[in-house]
Amino acid sequence: MGDPAGIGAEIIVKALADKVLRAAARFHILGLAACLEAAAVRAGISPFWWRIQHGSRLAETVTVHDAVVFDYPEFSAFLDTAAAANPGPSKAGGEASFRFVEDAISAAQLPRENPLHAVAIVTAPISKTSWDLAGRSRYPGHTELLAERFRTKRTAMMFFGPTLRVALVTVHIPLMEIRDVLTIGRVFDTIDLGHEACRAAGIGAPRIAVCGLNPHAGEDGLMGDEEARIIKPAIQLASDNGIDARGPYAADAVFLDAAKGKFDLVVAMYHDQGLIPVKLLDRERAVNVTVGLPGGAIRTSPAHGTAFDIAGKNLASPGSMHAAIELAIKMFHVEHPTP
Amino acid sequence: MGDPAGIGAEIIVKALADKVLRAAARFHILGLAACLEAAAVRAGISPFWWRIQHGSRLAETVTVHDAVVFDYPEFSAFLDTAAAANPGPSKAGGEASFRFVEDAISAAQLPRENPLHAVAIVTAPISKTSWDLAGRSRYPGHTELLAERFRTKRTAMMFFGPTLRVALVTVHIPLMEIRDVLTIGRVFDTIDLGHEACRAAGIGAPRIAVCGLNPHAGEDGLMGDEEARIIKPAIQLASDNGIDARGPYAADAVFLDAAKGKFDLVVAMYHDQGLIPVKLLDRERAVNVTVGLPGGAIRTSPAHGTAFDIAGKNLASPGSMHAAIELAIKMFHVEHPTP
Repeated sequence: MGDPAGIGAEIIVKALADKVLRAAARFHILGLAACLEAAAVRAGISPFWWRIQHGSRLAETVTVHDAVVFDYPEFSAFLDTAAAANPGPSKAGGEASFRFVEDAISAAQLPRENPLHAVAIVTAPISKTSWDLAGRSRYPGHTELLAERFRTKRTAMMFFGPTLRVALVTVHIPLMEIRDVLTIGRVFDTIDLGHEACRAAGIGAPRIAVCGLNPHAGEDGLMGDEEARIIKPAIQLASDNGIDARGPYAADAVFLDAAKGKFDLVVAMYHDQGLIPVKLLDRERAVNVTVGLPGGAIRTSPAHGTAFDIAGKNLASPGSMHAAIELAIKMFHVEHPTP
Repeated sequence: MGDPAGIGAEIIVKALADKVLRAAARFHILGLAACLEAAAVRAGISPFWWRIQHGSRLAETVTVHDAVVFDYPEFSAFLDTAAAANPGPSKAGGEASFRFVEDAISAAQLPRENPLHAVAIVTAPISKTSWDLAGRSRYPGHTELLAERFRTKRTAMMFFGPTLRVALVTVHIPLMEIRDVLTIGRVFDTIDLGHEACRAAGIGAPRIAVCGLNPHAGEDGLMGDEEARIIKPAIQLASDNGIDARGPYAADAVFLDAAKGKFDLVVAMYHDQGLIPVKLLDRERAVNVTVGLPGGAIRTSPAHGTAFDIAGKNLASPGSMHAAIELAIKMFHVEHPTP
């Protein structure tokens, strides 16, 4: 559900109101049932879920329902906070939303035969400020928490949109610190993980464009040497491993080529290089995907934030959440084809 | 004319074939008359210009014509090169195009009463490789040559498009060297020059958004301190000087706001941060403007390159050149209103 003061409950209710989507999987919603109910009332949607208390013995009986909300009475105090009445970040919202993600990860790590096992995690937006208030400031976001709990560093953040697919080599670090972390291995890992994710999404032989770091991709060394020292060798390594990766390309030209269909994936070197085009071309329709989680674990998320400014007003579009759920289901089925 | 092997002649001919545009100013075309003629023949446009030899005594008699090509017989050897037959970079093309720009700058620096004085320079694309071949490798492009010949360092590169206006604080340097040149003064200068340029283009009170350098504009210091140390003080300085500048904003969100009309100008910290959105949203319709030249000198340019791949094929769109000429004329008239 993400931060209970945000638009999480609303976009979950609206996305799962689509019966076709609901029939495509079983859904365990970790969050506050009261928030879900309020959002449904505001949207004029009839409740379609079964409520159960998280951690109760009844939990294991849930397999007969296609949508179950696992309620957390211990966080119901949130409902009396100022953040609930006037949406914004709060300690209570941070504590609740951190726990929802932790429990989702635990569910993903259960043995497959356990009825509470999750084959995919779809996260609604959290507030970093709420997490800070709740004493969780060491996690900039979902991705870092997931990487820690799944005990892996080899993950990458990707965005799947109707126009563009983008994978990021670096994410939430100061721009001037890229030089400290940009290595052949890291660029190669992102190409490789992005390649795998495209295949998991059903693209047989992904055509991958890799951005340069510098203006005009360094213009043959006239403006920076990272292209020659780091990016080209990483592309070569990818090619040697049978991946169709090309570049480095000038970032101010390559996204237009990708948008026109020349490439299936663009690998960007840093946050704004990848997110500026994603947000301009795919706006709220993009899906954030964490790739590289062990054991084929899937995690998707809408690409937008908590949107506190419109929370509780029935104004939120469920498009990105709907797309995030659809993509998670699709990735599962590609990995586990029905015989 | 830019590089004679590029699309310069073709886009000049096609843009000035518009009689309304041609009536709005007098045009001195510095370049090869043979290239202009060939482009006109291919485009089915009747020659509308008067040919004269550059530097001849007749030059001062040109004021009766609305379009004059100043021909350079000393560069006619270019016409026999491989680059002319099969468009590409060449030493001869570099020598010629460098000289065209130098002579345009000289014309702009003539006294206003001189009939050859240029009130604005519009440059067609040059090839950096051609300039290198001609021994001019110290100039990465027009902007640096203009800054040197006008003896100023306080210039900025801007892009005016139908959707976005963007000014760049840094341009053709390695990304990781931004830390060495990003100062309060430089950010302020770009805001100030961009503000002046918007006013020169007829926007009375430009609303200016300033980008952060880091992801999420540093997220309150969590990811980088340049926003607090450099960008915020520069914005404050601009505000103190009566400029409506705000930010720093997250670069992956601000361009969409600007495209929706919330801002008249976005100040970007580096090349790709500004050029990715300009090229995605305004493609070939953007105009490159050098702002800050002394004495109110105006210089505009199409935002695209020589396009050797389509040169000589009558395939080039004159849209950006047409817009560059229009904008130069508009900027002149705002600076010199007719009583």
